[in-house]
Amino acid sequence: RAEAGMEEEDVLFGLIGKIRAHPGQRDALLTVLGGSSQDIPGCLAYILGEDAADPDIIWVTEVWASREAHHASLSLPAVQAAISVGRRLIASFDLNAEMRPVAGIPGR
Amino acid sequence: RAEAGMEEEDVLFGLIGKIRAHPGQRDALLTVLGGSSQDIPGCLAYILGEDAADPDIIWVTEVWASREAHHASLSLPAVQAAISVGRRLIASFDLNAEMRPVAGIPGR
Repeated sequence: RAEAGMEEEDVLFGLIGKIRAHPGQRDALLTVLGGSSQDIPGCLAYILGEDAADPDIIWVTEVWASREAHHASLSLPAVQAAISVGRRLIASFDLNAEMRPVAGIPGR
Repeated sequence: RAEAGMEEEDVLFGLIGKIRAHPGQRDALLTVLGGSSQDIPGCLAYILGEDAADPDIIWVTEVWASREAHHASLSLPAVQAAISVGRRLIASFDLNAEMRPVAGIPGR
């Protein structure tokens, strides 16, 4: 791989998520998810989108400076609060794919 | 919807793609896809990632200022060139979901 020489800490961490909200709850869930992502250490991107065809589906693309930065974010009070509220609005995670962001990273 | 009042042109256009490269061609395809996305009018994000589990899969998250901006990009010489080269490296599009980006837009 072109990046074969990259050390572990150079490797960014990313997630592609497809989240199904309970019917009628997508806007509420977007508000919860959107609120918690601003200025979290190591969060390079947290893009939320409404599926154009399915009214219950939210897409989220996350880019983190490292796996550790993502993991640490999960214990932040704001994120914990969002998870506890959001959980009740979520019907299922239809997709949660881990990926290594390699190009087009915002701000880089 | 909270954004019910948004006019059509305020609505951003986004795509989540899962692209399967021919075996051993992911790096080459990433190079082709990564090269063509810089400074294309209306392209607010074009994040490329390697699937962490499947060595042939690329994830792409695109955010465009409008559907029209995305459509116009397809006829740019650089993008046409990337498509013609990339096409030979692509085995299949396993996912190509249209979405409306609503939060976390880079630079906004």
